[in-house]
Amino acid sequence: MKHIVQIPSFLKTISKKGAAPGTLTHVGLQKVKKTHLGIFRYGKNDCEEKQITKTKDLQEKPNTVLWLNLDGLHDIALIEEIGTRFALHTLLLEDILNTGQRPKIEEYDDCIFIVLKMLHVTGDMQFSLEQVSLVLKDHLVISFHEQPQDVFDPMRERLRKGQGKIRQLGADYLMYRIMDSIIDGYFSGLEHIGDRIEEVEKQLIDKPSDAVIQKIYSLRQQMLFLRKAVHPLRDVANQLQHGECDAIQENTAMYFRDLYDHTIQVIDAVDTYRDILSNMLDNYLSLMSHRMNSVMKVLTIVGTIFIPLTFIAGIYGMNFRYMPELEWAWGYPAVWGVMLTLTLTMLGVMKWKKWL
Amino acid sequence: MKHIVQIPSFLKTISKKGAAPGTLTHVGLQKVKKTHLGIFRYGKNDCEEKQITKTKDLQEKPNTVLWLNLDGLHDIALIEEIGTRFALHTLLLEDILNTGQRPKIEEYDDCIFIVLKMLHVTGDMQFSLEQVSLVLKDHLVISFHEQPQDVFDPMRERLRKGQGKIRQLGADYLMYRIMDSIIDGYFSGLEHIGDRIEEVEKQLIDKPSDAVIQKIYSLRQQMLFLRKAVHPLRDVANQLQHGECDAIQENTAMYFRDLYDHTIQVIDAVDTYRDILSNMLDNYLSLMSHRMNSVMKVLTIVGTIFIPLTFIAGIYGMNFRYMPELEWAWGYPAVWGVMLTLTLTMLGVMKWKKWL
Amino acid sequence: MKHIVQIPSFLKTISKKGAAPGTLTHVGLQKVKKTHLGIFRYGKNDCEEKQITKTKDLQEKPNTVLWLNLDGLHDIALIEEIGTRFALHTLLLEDILNTGQRPKIEEYDDCIFIVLKMLHVTGDMQFSLEQVSLVLKDHLVISFHEQPQDVFDPMRERLRKGQGKIRQLGADYLMYRIMDSIIDGYFSGLEHIGDRIEEVEKQLIDKPSDAVIQKIYSLRQQMLFLRKAVHPLRDVANQLQHGECDAIQENTAMYFRDLYDHTIQVIDAVDTYRDILSNMLDNYLSLMSHRMNSVMKVLTIVGTIFIPLTFIAGIYGMNFRYMPELEWAWGYPAVWGVMLTLTLTMLGVMKWKKWL
Amino acid sequence: MKHIVQIPSFLKTISKKGAAPGTLTHVGLQKVKKTHLGIFRYGKNDCEEKQITKTKDLQEKPNTVLWLNLDGLHDIALIEEIGTRFALHTLLLEDILNTGQRPKIEEYDDCIFIVLKMLHVTGDMQFSLEQVSLVLKDHLVISFHEQPQDVFDPMRERLRKGQGKIRQLGADYLMYRIMDSIIDGYFSGLEHIGDRIEEVEKQLIDKPSDAVIQKIYSLRQQMLFLRKAVHPLRDVANQLQHGECDAIQENTAMYFRDLYDHTIQVIDAVDTYRDILSNMLDNYLSLMSHRMNSVMKVLTIVGTIFIPLTFIAGIYGMNFRYMPELEWAWGYPAVWGVMLTLTLTMLGVMKWKKWL
Amino acid sequence: MKHIVQIPSFLKTISKKGAAPGTLTHVGLQKVKKTHLGIFRYGKNDCEEKQITKTKDLQEKPNTVLWLNLDGLHDIALIEEIGTRFALHTLLLEDILNTGQRPKIEEYDDCIFIVLKMLHVTGDMQFSLEQVSLVLKDHLVISFHEQPQDVFDPMRERLRKGQGKIRQLGADYLMYRIMDSIIDGYFSGLEHIGDRIEEVEKQLIDKPSDAVIQKIYSLRQQMLFLRKAVHPLRDVANQLQHGECDAIQENTAMYFRDLYDHTIQVIDAVDTYRDILSNMLDNYLSLMSHRMNSVMKVLTIVGTIFIPLTFIAGIYGMNFRYMPELEWAWGYPAVWGVMLTLTLTMLGVMKWKKWL
Repeated sequence: MKHIVQIPSFLKTISKKGAAPGTLTHVGLQKVKKTHLGIFRYGKNDCEEKQITKTKDLQEKPNTVLWLNLDGLHDIALIEEIGTRFALHTLLLEDILNTGQRPKIEEYDDCIFIVLKMLHVTGDMQFSLEQVSLVLKDHLVISFHEQPQDVFDPMRERLRKGQGKIRQLGADYLMYRIMDSIIDGYFSGLEHIGDRIEEVEKQLIDKPSDAVIQKIYSLRQQMLFLRKAVHPLRDVANQLQHGECDAIQENTAMYFRDLYDHTIQVIDAVDTYRDILSNMLDNYLSLMSHRMNSVMKVLTIVGTIFIPLTFIAGIYGMNFRYMPELEWAWGYPAVWGVMLTLTLTMLGVMKWKKWL
Repeated sequence: MKHIVQIPSFLKTISKKGAAPGTLTHVGLQKVKKTHLGIFRYGKNDCEEKQITKTKDLQEKPNTVLWLNLDGLHDIALIEEIGTRFALHTLLLEDILNTGQRPKIEEYDDCIFIVLKMLHVTGDMQFSLEQVSLVLKDHLVISFHEQPQDVFDPMRERLRKGQGKIRQLGADYLMYRIMDSIIDGYFSGLEHIGDRIEEVEKQLIDKPSDAVIQKIYSLRQQMLFLRKAVHPLRDVANQLQHGECDAIQENTAMYFRDLYDHTIQVIDAVDTYRDILSNMLDNYLSLMSHRMNSVMKVLTIVGTIFIPLTFIAGIYGMNFRYMPELEWAWGYPAVWGVMLTLTLTMLGVMKWKKWL
Repeated sequence: MKHIVQIPSFLKTISKKGAAPGTLTHVGLQKVKKTHLGIFRYGKNDCEEKQITKTKDLQEKPNTVLWLNLDGLHDIALIEEIGTRFALHTLLLEDILNTGQRPKIEEYDDCIFIVLKMLHVTGDMQFSLEQVSLVLKDHLVISFHEQPQDVFDPMRERLRKGQGKIRQLGADYLMYRIMDSIIDGYFSGLEHIGDRIEEVEKQLIDKPSDAVIQKIYSLRQQMLFLRKAVHPLRDVANQLQHGECDAIQENTAMYFRDLYDHTIQVIDAVDTYRDILSNMLDNYLSLMSHRMNSVMKVLTIVGTIFIPLTFIAGIYGMNFRYMPELEWAWGYPAVWGVMLTLTLTMLGVMKWKKWL
Repeated sequence: MKHIVQIPSFLKTISKKGAAPGTLTHVGLQKVKKTHLGIFRYGKNDCEEKQITKTKDLQEKPNTVLWLNLDGLHDIALIEEIGTRFALHTLLLEDILNTGQRPKIEEYDDCIFIVLKMLHVTGDMQFSLEQVSLVLKDHLVISFHEQPQDVFDPMRERLRKGQGKIRQLGADYLMYRIMDSIIDGYFSGLEHIGDRIEEVEKQLIDKPSDAVIQKIYSLRQQMLFLRKAVHPLRDVANQLQHGECDAIQENTAMYFRDLYDHTIQVIDAVDTYRDILSNMLDNYLSLMSHRMNSVMKVLTIVGTIFIPLTFIAGIYGMNFRYMPELEWAWGYPAVWGVMLTLTLTMLGVMKWKKWL
Repeated sequence: MKHIVQIPSFLKTISKKGAAPGTLTHVGLQKVKKTHLGIFRYGKNDCEEKQITKTKDLQEKPNTVLWLNLDGLHDIALIEEIGTRFALHTLLLEDILNTGQRPKIEEYDDCIFIVLKMLHVTGDMQFSLEQVSLVLKDHLVISFHEQPQDVFDPMRERLRKGQGKIRQLGADYLMYRIMDSIIDGYFSGLEHIGDRIEEVEKQLIDKPSDAVIQKIYSLRQQMLFLRKAVHPLRDVANQLQHGECDAIQENTAMYFRDLYDHTIQVIDAVDTYRDILSNMLDNYLSLMSHRMNSVMKVLTIVGTIFIPLTFIAGIYGMNFRYMPELEWAWGYPAVWGVMLTLTLTMLGVMKWKKWL
C-alpha cells in the first residue's frame, strides 16, 4: 500500500498567518527562475510584441488593446510596480500572489479580477493545478501565471497574423480567449484521465491486485480535488455570460455563454468519471464477494462431509486392545456402509437446503 | 469479468484543442456516407417536398412554413453555406458540428437554437445517443441530424396528407412535433430497458453468476449516462413552456407544457430504473451474505465438534509401546464415553449461545 | 428468491409511440366492463342524482353545482363527446386517457385540470395506483376514474342529505372534497403498510429467512414507487392553497391549505417508513456480521489449537519400524506434556491478542 | 433481537377516514382523565388565576392579557364551546384535536395558530412527543395540551410574582415564553440522550453485544423521528422572527429571533447525535472487520501448514503390509525432513506474499 | 477500543433550563481566574492602551476608535455594567454569556452583534472551539473572549506602532481585523490537522491496527464538528460583505469580501479533509477485503485437496482384522494412485472454475 492520499498542495498554501491584509507575500512554490513580463499591443491593423522589465513608462494608445503577461510570481517588487501603474487594489495584488485561491470573479470599481486554475497533467496518474489571475480594465488585460504556458501559443500566433476576429474585438474578447484556452486544457486533461481509467479497468479485470485498487482510489480522490477546482468556475462563467459586468460588451457576452457551456461539460465529465470509478469499484467488490461465497461454500461442503468421515476412520485406527468391532469379519464393510450412508444423508440435506 | 464501463463516446468528443472559437470542425463520428438535404414547404392547403443540394436559391414564400432537414454533419462547406444563407451565428454552427454537446436551448437575436439527444437502442444492452440540432427562425425550422431518422416518418406522412393540426399551425408547432418525436423515442427506449431489467432479474434469481452481476452494473452505469443526457432536457422544455421565447406563440406554449410533462416522465422512469437496479443488487448481496452466514455456521459447528474428537481418536492411534490406557479392558468404551460427553457439552454450549 | 422488483405498470404505459399529439387513445388497462356516467346536480336546497349516457343535452341551471362522474376510460367516443360539450382542450382529454401521468395541475383558459393517483391496497403486500382526473370549470366538476370508487360514498351520502357545508359552497369546495377523499385513502393505505412493516419486523427477529429479507426489500421498493407518486401531489396542493388559481374562491383556499398539510403528512410517513425499513435492514445485517464474527472466532480458536495437536498425534501413529520415541518408556507422557505446553502457550497468545 | 423499530404512534394517528372536514373528533390517546381549563389574566399590576369550566361568560378587560390553558383534549364539547366563544375556524379546532399534526404555523384572519411538539423523556431510551396547540388573538393566548405540563411552572411563578418583563409585555410575548419553555424541554431531552449515547459507547467498547448494537440502532431511529418533529419548527420560528405576522409586535420579534436561534441549535444537536451514532457504528464494524481479518488469517496459516503435514503422517499410519518406506532405517527421519522442508517452504511463500 | 466519540462540550452547554429569557447566567467553563478588561483608543496619530476595571467613566472622544476587550466571561456584574454603559440589549448579553452559541450575526437598532468560534489545537488530535463575541457600535468595538488570546498580538503591535491602514480606518475595519485573525487561526489549525492526517495515513500503511482505524474515525468525527462550527461563518461573512449592514462602510465591505473568500477556503479544506479520510478508510477496507479473499482462497484450496486425502489415509490406518486391501501387494501404490488421480482431478476442476 503506497501513499495515495497526499494532502493536496493547495491546501498547504492557504495559510499566511498573522500578516496584515494587504501585505504582499508570495504564498506558493517558485516554479520559474526569472519572471518574464511581456506585452502584446494590437489594433485592427497592427500588432506589437515585446519583453519589458517595468511598466512605468507604458503609454496608452487609442484604439489598441494591451495585453500584459507576467510569468512567475515571486518578484513582489515588480507586481507592486504593476499594481501602482494600473491602480490595482492591494487585496487584488495579495490574491494574485497567494496561489491557494479558489476560482473566483471579483468586480472592483474600474476593473474585473478573475482567478482561474489551469490543469496540468504532470505524470501518468498525477495532475497539478496552477493559478492564473486575470485583470480586465478598459483596453487592458493583465494575466499572471506561475510559469510560462504553451497553451496560449496558438492564440498568440493568431494575434500576430491577425487571423480571425481577435484583432477586431476588444479586451473583453481577449480575456475570453485566454479563459477559453484554459478550459480547453481541462478537456485534454480529461481525455488523458479517461485513458487512464480505461487502462485501470483493463488491469482490474485481467490482473486485480492491491496496486490496481489503490490506483482507482487515487483517481477517485483526484476527481474529488478536480471537482472542487472546477465547480466555482461555473459561477465565474455564469456571471460573465449574463453580462452583469459592465466591462463585457454585449456581443462578447455570447462567447462567454459558450464558455459557460464548456465549463458545464467539464463538470459533467468530472462527475461522470467519478461515477464510473465508483461503479467500477462496487462492481469489483460485488464480484469478489460473489466468488468468495462460491469458494467458501465448496470448503464448507468438503469439510462438512469429510471431517466426520475422518473421525470415524480415526476411531478404528485406535490401538485399544479390546475393540470388539475390529475383530468382526464384517466390521470393515460395515464401516464403509456407515460412511456411505452418512455421506448420502449429508448430501441429501445439502441438496434440500439448496447448497448444491 | 468483461469490460463494462467504457468511457462513453460523448466524453471523447468534447475536445477540440487549440482551435479558435468559431472554427468549424466536425467533432464526432461520420455516421452516414453522403449528406442529404431535404426541404418540406407547406401552407394550409399545399405541401411541397424535395431534395436539394444548396440553399442559396431558396426563396421565402408568404404563408408557408419551411422545414430544412440535413442528415449527416461532415459536409462543413454545406453547413457553412446554410449558415450564410440564413444568417446563423458561427458559434451556433460550431455547436451543431460538435456532437459532444449537452441538450440546451440558446436564444439568438433572431432565432432559437436547440440541441437535443436522441436515444437509440443499438443492441441488446447497448444504447447510443445521437445529437439533433434545431434552429427556429420566423417561418423556418432547420434540423441537423447525424444520420437519417425513421422516427420522423409518421410526422412526415401527416404533413404530406395534411392530417391533424400540423399544417394549420406555424413553425413553432413543427419544432414541437420534432421534439415530441424525439422524446417518444425515449419512451420506446425505456420500455426496451425495462424488459432487459426484468430479464436480468430473472437470471439473477434463477442462475446468479458473475455475468449477471456485471450486466446489472452495466445497466446501472447506462442509467447514469442516460440521466445526464435527459436532465438538461427538462430545462429546455421548461424554458419553452413558459413562453419566455418570443418565437413561441401563445397557443403553441400549451404543447410545450405537454412536452415538459413527458420529459419529467422520462426522468422519473430513468430514476426509477436506477433505484430498481440498486435495490436488486442490495437485495442480492444481502441474501448472499445471509446464506453465507448459514453455510459458514454449519462448517463451524461441524468443525468445532469433530476436530477435538478426531484429536482424541488420533491420541489412541499412536503406537507408543507404553500406553497404559490401551491395555485397559474398558479403555475403548471409556473413550467413547468421553467423546459423547464432550459432544453433548459442546452442543449444549452452542444451544445456549443460540447457534442452533 | 422470488421476483420482487417488477417494473411498475405505470412505467409500462407511458409509451404511445408515433401518434400525433391530440390523438385520443386509451393507454392503460381496461379495469371495468362498461363505463358509467353519473351526474349530481345540487343547490343549497335540492340535489338531483342520475345516470346518463350522453352529455349533449345537459343544461346549465343557475345557482347549482354539477358533478359529472365517469367510471371507466375506454369509451373514447364518450370522452370525446364530453370534451366537445364542455369545450375541453384535446391535450387535456389525451392526458385523461393516458393512465401513466404523474400527479399534476394545469390551468387552461377557462378551467383547472388536475391529475391525481389513488392508492389501492390490492393484496397483502401489494399496492396499485389508479389515476383520477378532475376538471373544474365554473359551476362544474368532472371526475374521470378507471373504475368505480367506494371512497366517495360517504361524501355522496352527505351531498344527498345536505349535511355539512358541501351544499352551501361552490364547485371548488366539491373538488376539494374529492381530493380530500383521495388523500384519506393514502392514510388508510399507509396504516396498512405500517402493519405489514411491524409483521415483517417480527418475522425478521423470530425467524429470519430469505423470504423475510426479500419482503423488506419489496416493501422498500414500493415505498420508492409511492414516494414518486406522492411527491408531485405536494406541488398540486401547494398551488391550490396559495389561491393562484382564479377558480378557487378565497374562503375555499383555507381548505386547500388543510389538504396541503395532509399531503405533507403522507410524504412524511412514506419517508419515515423508508427510513424504518432501511434501518431495520442495516440493523439486521450488522447483527449478522457481529454474530458471524463470534462464530468464526470459535472455529478459528478450536482449529488453531487442535489441528497442530492432531498432527502430533498423527506423527506417533506412523508405523515406521525405527521410531525411537515409540520405544521410550516415558514417550507417551512426554507427548502429552508437549501437547499441554503447546495448548497453554497458544491459549496464552490468544489471551494476549484479546481473542478470548 | 428485540423489537426496535416500532412504527411511531404519531404515524398511527394521522388517519381519520371518511369523516367530512371540520368534523371534530379526538384523534390520539386520552392521556388525562379529566380536562382542566384554567385562566391567567394579568395586567401590569395585577394577576388573576382560576380554574373555570366554561368560557361563555369570560369578559374582555382592557389592558389585560388573558391566557386560557386547556389540559386534555377529549372533551370535544368544551373545545367546541371555546371555538364558538372566540370565533375559531372549524379547521383550526380539527387540527387541535388531531394529535398527529406536524409543527406548523397558520395565519387566520384574526388569529395565529401554532402547533408544536413537546419532547418527553419517558424511559431510559424512550421519548415521546406531545402536541401543544397555541392560538394568539389580540390580547388572548389559548394553549391546548394533551396533559398538564410541569415545564410551564417557573413561568407561571414569574407571572404570579410579576417578575421580569412578562407582565409588562403583551400576549405575543406570553406566546413566546410558552414556546421558549417547550424548546427548553428539547434541550433537557437532548442532554439526556447525550448521556445515553455516552453510556452506549462505553458498553460497545467494554462488552459489545447484540443488545448494544440494537440500542444504537434504536437511538439512531429515534434521532430520525426527532429530526422530523424538529425540522418544521424552524420554519415556524423563522416566520415569527421575520415579523411577517401582524400579531407580533416589533419589539417582541427580537425574542422570536432568539427562539429561532434555539431551534437551530436543537436541529444541530439532533444532526450531530445522528452523525455520532453513525460514526460509532461504522467505527465498530470496521474494527470488527479488521479483527476478523487477523483472526481468519491465523486460522488459514495454521490450517495451510498443518493440514498437509497431517496428511503425510496419515500416509505412514496406514497398515498396508507392503509399504517399503516403513522398513527403511532412515524412513522416520526422512519424513521429518520432508515435513520440515515443506513447512519452511510454505512459511517462505507466506512471507513473500506478505501474510506474516 | 478507546472512547472516541465524546459528546462535544458545546452540546452540553446549550441548556439553561427554566430561566427566563434575559436572565444573565454564564453557561460554560470558567477558563480564566480573573477577568481582564482592557481598552485601546486610537486615532490617526495617537494610540492609548490601558487596563480598566469599570466602564462607567469611559468618555467618547471625537475622531477616535475605542476597542474594549474583555477576557473571561464569569464576572456577570461587569458584563451587566458594560451592557448598561453602552445600552446593549439583554438578549445580546445573554448570548455573550452562553458559550454554546453557533456563529451568527444579529443586527440591533444601533449595533451589530457577531458570535464566532475560535479554533484551538489543544493536543495531538484534539481541538477545542472557543467563543468570541463582537459588538460594533459607532466608533466602538467590544470583544468578549473566554480567555486571553495570543492571535491578536500582531494586530495590537500594528495598532501601537501605527503600521498599515488600521489607524486610518474606522471601527468596522478594526472588527474586520479581529475576525480575520480568528479565521487565520483556522488556517493554522487546518494545517496541523493536515499533518495529522498524513501521519495517520503513514501508520495505516506501515502498521495498520485498531488504534489507527480509531484515530481516523476520531479525526473524521472532528471534521464533522468543525464543519458545523465553520458553516454558519459563511453566512456571517456573506451578510457583512454585501454591505447590508449600515455600520459597514463601503470601502471596508471589500475587506469583508476577502474574509468571505477565506471562510469559503476554510469550509473547502474541512470538506476536503473529510473526503480524504473517508476515501482512506474505503481504500483500506477494500484492500483488506481483497487480501482476505486471497488468503481464504488458499485455505479453501489446501483444505479441499488435503481433507479428502487425509480421509483416505485414515481409512487404511484402521485396524480391522479383515481388510483385504491391506494384504494386497499393490495396495499401497494403488492408494497413492487414487490419491494422485483425485488431486489432479480437483486441481483440474479448480483451474476450470478459475480459482487458480
